[in-house]
Amino acid sequence: MTSPQPHGTSPHATSLDQALHPTTPPAGHRGHQGGHRARSVADHVAAVAELLRPLRSLNRTELLPLSQALGRGLASDITAPISLPPFANSQMDGYAIRSADVPDGGTELRVMPPVPAGASPAALVPGLAAPIMTGAMLPEGADAVVPIERAIPDRFLPHSGRATVKLPAAAPGTFVRDTGSDIRAGGTALAAGTFLGPAQLGLLAALGISEVAVHQAVTVLLVTTGDEVVEPGQDLPAGKIYDSNGTLLEAAMRQAGLEVRRTGIVTDNPEKLRGLLRAEGGGVDLIVTTGGVSKGAYEVVRQAMEDQPVEFLHVAMQPGGPQGIGTFEGRPVLGFPGNPVSCLVSFEMFLRPVLAGLLGAPALRLPLRARLAQPLKSPEHKHQVRRGTLQPDGTVELQGGESSHLMHALAGSNVLVHVPEGVAALAAGAEVEVWML
Amino acid sequence: MTSPQPHGTSPHATSLDQALHPTTPPAGHRGHQGGHRARSVADHVAAVAELLRPLRSLNRTELLPLSQALGRGLASDITAPISLPPFANSQMDGYAIRSADVPDGGTELRVMPPVPAGASPAALVPGLAAPIMTGAMLPEGADAVVPIERAIPDRFLPHSGRATVKLPAAAPGTFVRDTGSDIRAGGTALAAGTFLGPAQLGLLAALGISEVAVHQAVTVLLVTTGDEVVEPGQDLPAGKIYDSNGTLLEAAMRQAGLEVRRTGIVTDNPEKLRGLLRAEGGGVDLIVTTGGVSKGAYEVVRQAMEDQPVEFLHVAMQPGGPQGIGTFEGRPVLGFPGNPVSCLVSFEMFLRPVLAGLLGAPALRLPLRARLAQPLKSPEHKHQVRRGTLQPDGTVELQGGESSHLMHALAGSNVLVHVPEGVAALAAGAEVEVWML
Repeated sequence: MTSPQPHGTSPHATSLDQALHPTTPPAGHRGHQGGHRARSVADHVAAVAELLRPLRSLNRTELLPLSQALGRGLASDITAPISLPPFANSQMDGYAIRSADVPDGGTELRVMPPVPAGASPAALVPGLAAPIMTGAMLPEGADAVVPIERAIPDRFLPHSGRATVKLPAAAPGTFVRDTGSDIRAGGTALAAGTFLGPAQLGLLAALGISEVAVHQAVTVLLVTTGDEVVEPGQDLPAGKIYDSNGTLLEAAMRQAGLEVRRTGIVTDNPEKLRGLLRAEGGGVDLIVTTGGVSKGAYEVVRQAMEDQPVEFLHVAMQPGGPQGIGTFEGRPVLGFPGNPVSCLVSFEMFLRPVLAGLLGAPALRLPLRARLAQPLKSPEHKHQVRRGTLQPDGTVELQGGESSHLMHALAGSNVLVHVPEGVAALAAGAEVEVWML
Repeated sequence: MTSPQPHGTSPHATSLDQALHPTTPPAGHRGHQGGHRARSVADHVAAVAELLRPLRSLNRTELLPLSQALGRGLASDITAPISLPPFANSQMDGYAIRSADVPDGGTELRVMPPVPAGASPAALVPGLAAPIMTGAMLPEGADAVVPIERAIPDRFLPHSGRATVKLPAAAPGTFVRDTGSDIRAGGTALAAGTFLGPAQLGLLAALGISEVAVHQAVTVLLVTTGDEVVEPGQDLPAGKIYDSNGTLLEAAMRQAGLEVRRTGIVTDNPEKLRGLLRAEGGGVDLIVTTGGVSKGAYEVVRQAMEDQPVEFLHVAMQPGGPQGIGTFEGRPVLGFPGNPVSCLVSFEMFLRPVLAGLLGAPALRLPLRARLAQPLKSPEHKHQVRRGTLQPDGTVELQGGESSHLMHALAGSNVLVHVPEGVAALAAGAEVEVWML
C-alpha cells in the first residue's frame, strides 16, 4: 500500500527532498548582506531546513499516550506487534461452516452453540454449522460464513441442540477476514515521520500500542513589529492599521501544532526589540518576526540584527520576497515581511513544509492540479503565490489581486495557487498547482 | 467575492442544505423499530440534523477573544467597522508624487520630509516628491508612488531640504492601495456560520475586532462497547481484539473541535451501559456509542435503549449501514456500528457535516473530483464509501477493499471516495467525488 503521506512526487516536495537531503551544501546564510540576485524558493527552503535541522534529534522526542499524540510526527518506524486481524473472523452475522459440507444446491445442517464476538470457540464439528457474530473468531475447521439473511430460518433461534438450518453453498473464504489480511505481524505499520491523524492513531490502537514516540512540539516566539500597527480593540489613529499578522500567524502556527508565545507589538526601536528577544526568547526553538526586513528607511528587525549572523535577502517569490534568516544570540530566527498575506505565504512556503519534512508534523499540504477560472499575469522571474477558491469541478477562482494586503480576499480563499518562475501569464483554463489551506 | 465556505454546490452539501432547511419534515426517528427498507444517506443526515438542531441556539453562543476562537463557527454576520485599507497607502518603498507633476520623460523634483508607515503626513507640496514607505499613508495631493528602484538616486538620502530626485512618470493610482479596496466599511466581512481559521481571524484582527461571538464547542460522551474489545496496552486473549474505535473517534472528534469524554470499554451488559450513561452523561450535548446496533444476538446498545425513543435502522450505505438514532433520557444519542472504518465513515457522513451546517464548525470537507486508478464494484442500492489516496495528478488509488475492518488501509488513505446509490461498477478512469480527510 501507499505510504500515509503520498506527497513525495509533487514538484514542491521534490525541492523539499533536495532541501532536506542536499547533495551540495545549501547557500550559506551567515553573511550580513544578501546578494543582489534573488534566491530561489527551493534554495530558501533548503536554508530554512538547514537552520532548523537540529530540531530533528533524539533528544527532542517524547513518549506520549495515543490520546496526546494527535497532530505529532512519528519519531521512528512502528513495526506491527500482531497481525490485523489477529485471527480469522466473520465478516457477517451468520453461520460458520466447512464449505465442503454444503453441496451446490444447499443443505440442512445441525446447529452448534453460537460463537459471540470475543469468544475463543470450540472447533466446528464436521457437518454442523455454528451461529457466528460479526468479528467473532472462526472456529477451527470452518472456512466460510453464510450470512443470516441467506439462511432458513433467517434469524437466530435459541440454541437447543437439535435445531437445524438450511444453508446455501459458499466458496472457501466467503465472508471470512483472514489473519493478517490488513497487516501482518512484523510488517511496517507506520514509517518514521508519519503525521499522526485519527486513522494513524486508530491503527496504533488496533495493534495494541498505547504509547508512541513522537517529535516534540516546536515552540515559537512570535513578534510583530511596526510603528504603524495597533492592537485590535484599541482606537485607530490616522495613518495606523490594526495588527493582523500576530493573530493570523499565531492561528496558522497553532493549527499546525506549534506552541506559540506572543509578545506585544514592537515599535520601530531596534534596541527595544533586542531587549525583548533576550527577555522572552528563553527556551523557544525559533523566533519569527514580521515586518522590518525590507529596504525602507525604518527596518527595525534588520537594525536589531545588525551584529548577529542574520541574512536579509530577497527570495524570488511574490508576495513574501523580503526574508530574514539566521540566529539571534544562537537562537534560530526567521524574519517574515510585514504584509499579512506575505506572512502567511512565508509560513506556508518555508516554515510549514520544512517542519513537515523534518518532524512529520504538521502534515504537508496536498498539492492538487486545478484549472484557472480566469487568466493571470505573474512576474516571470518570480514564483508567484496567488489565493483562490477551489471549486468542486476542479476550477480555481482567483481571489483578490497580486497584492499582499488583501486580508478579506484571503479569508475567502481555500487554496494557494502556484505560478512557477519562468511563467509570465496563464490563460483561463490553464492547469496550475494548488495547495489546500 | 466568493463566500469563505465555497462548498454549497456539492451534491452532498445540497443534501445537507435540504436537511438543514427541509421543506417537508424529515423522516421521524422516534419509533422503536426501523422499517425493513434502508433509509437513504440524505434522509439520515436530515434525521441527525433534526436531532441536533437545538445545538444552534443563542443560548449556546459565547464571546471569545480571537486567540481562543480558532476552529469555531461564527454565530452572526460580521459587518466591517472600518474600510480595509483604512486609508490610501503606498504599496512600495518609493516616492509619493502628484502624477501630473511628472511629464512623460520624467523630471527632477525637490524632496519633502519622508513619510514613515504609521505617520499622518503633511499634504504634498505641489511639484515636490515625498519619500514614502510601504504601507504609509499617502499624503493629501499625492496620487501615485514611484518605487525607489526606479528613482535616481535609487536609495533614500538623509533629508536636507535641498535634495532632489529624478523620477519617471507614473499614471494616477500607480502602486497606491486605495481606501476600501479590500473591503468597505459597512460591508459584510464574514457571514454567520463561517468557519474561523487563521485567515478569517486575521481579517477580524485587521478590522480591529478583538472578540467574536461563536457557537459553543459540542461535548460528546464517547462509549465503545463490546465483549470482544480490550484496551490497547493490555494482554490480548484469544478471540479478542484491541479497541481502536475509541482512539480513532476521539481523535477525529477532537480534530474537528469537539470536546470528548471517554468511558472505559463497556462489555455486552445492557444494564451496566444504562448505568454508565446515567453516571457520565450529565452535561454532555451528545452521546455517541460504537457497536451493538446491528442484528446479531448480542447487541448491547440496542438492548440498553429498549425503553428509550431510539430507532435502530439500516442506512443505504456501505460501510456503516447499521445506525442508531434518538435520545437516552432526553439526551441525543447516535449509535455507530462497531467496525472502525464504519465508525469513521459514520462520523464523516453524518455527524461532521451536520455540525458544520448547524454551527459552522468543523469545516465541511471540500468535495473534489478525481479519476479512479482502478475499477471498483459497489452494491447498487447503497452509497458506498471507499478509502483512497489522492495523487497530485488527480487520480485516486483505492486503499484496501470494501471491508470495514481495514485500519492499516485507512491509515494510508487521505480521501473518502463516494460511489452513489444506483452505481454497481465503475471503470478505471471514471470520475468520482472524493472528500479530503
